[in-house]
Amino acid sequence: MPAAAAKSRARKELRPASPWAARRRPRHEHALKREAVILAAARAFQARGYHNTSLDDLAASLKVTKPTLYLYVPNKEAILFECFRAGLVQIQASLDASERASGPARERLFAFIRGYAEAIVGDFGWCMLRAEDQHLGATMSRRIKLLKAGIDRRMRALIDAGVADGSIRPCDTRMTAFALAGALNWMGHWYRDDATLRPLDIAERFIDVFNRGLKGRD
Amino acid sequence: MPAAAAKSRARKELRPASPWAARRRPRHEHALKREAVILAAARAFQARGYHNTSLDDLAASLKVTKPTLYLYVPNKEAILFECFRAGLVQIQASLDASERASGPARERLFAFIRGYAEAIVGDFGWCMLRAEDQHLGATMSRRIKLLKAGIDRRMRALIDAGVADGSIRPCDTRMTAFALAGALNWMGHWYRDDATLRPLDIAERFIDVFNRGLKGRD
Repeated sequence: MPAAAAKSRARKELRPASPWAARRRPRHEHALKREAVILAAARAFQARGYHNTSLDDLAASLKVTKPTLYLYVPNKEAILFECFRAGLVQIQASLDASERASGPARERLFAFIRGYAEAIVGDFGWCMLRAEDQHLGATMSRRIKLLKAGIDRRMRALIDAGVADGSIRPCDTRMTAFALAGALNWMGHWYRDDATLRPLDIAERFIDVFNRGLKGRD
Repeated sequence: MPAAAAKSRARKELRPASPWAARRRPRHEHALKREAVILAAARAFQARGYHNTSLDDLAASLKVTKPTLYLYVPNKEAILFECFRAGLVQIQASLDASERASGPARERLFAFIRGYAEAIVGDFGWCMLRAEDQHLGATMSRRIKLLKAGIDRRMRALIDAGVADGSIRPCDTRMTAFALAGALNWMGHWYRDDATLRPLDIAERFIDVFNRGLKGRD
């Protein structure tokens, strides 16, 4: 349904409206406006691509001048990094919760899968997945790689914990983490807002496949 | 091991050497040279990105002039499409074999997974995965999407056949295909030539996870 998808995208791009229009407590005002810049950028990058989105476009979509943008972010690469970081925060929150929870590690891994699925199709998912491909400077690329490796390490630790507590059968935990991450990250390529399954429904299907496997009769 | 990776990359880029140097039967000469152009382009796109590789770079790496390139390919977009097609041919060959084979569909699906893993980390894997992201013209994008959808459909048909013959337990075949494709395609992001596991080893690990699932004790 390209029409529905276009509509949904247009609606999304219209939204991050007007922290500049309303008056709020000055303490929070700068932080709120900065968040609005980052959210608008994330949506624009996803809709049109990073290289096809200029700071002029972004300023226009927020109805501010380009110099105003510079009050909040130093340059486009820094904005992409902030978009990446916003997605990372969601994923880390889900990891924190799974690490703190009690119960078998398999269940805690599956809870993380649900959180990851929601984050990866959320506003910052595209930037999470694509930031690395945008030919960023070497320092920025390295930073993003390191942060991503951190997620991978914590995910693998959850699988290891499952093997240790017996809730996950012995397996190649590194390859299992890659298979899980791949299945989830791939959602960012095929998932559309107008899809019939919501992210949590998809996560349940994936969990079913990864939990019980495909094996029927021999 | 970045040094080893760089060495391996350099070796790869040096290789598609010299169909221009040797004399061959004229019948095949044009086809061979065209293949060399496409292979050199695929390696250059993977190493430096599509937008960072010019036809001048490509001509220089093949030690020919740019007008000579035009004897084989009309423009850069067409080269990327040919790289995509070369990868597609490998994947389709693996699908053909799995569809023709006898035996339980689960085994035929796993044989396809092995073929896909080899193709996706091969010379044309990057182009298979990234062609769509390069802001190609609308016609080209549509063509690539359609061809990819064809792979997805045939993969899903293999899973359906497994559910029908009982070798795969009843599952959401669409989501299962997405999970499998995601795990495999993600290899294109993390796999390096100098990895300790070869593509077929990785495929076996993935098959183990997808076959038996992760479930240990309850």
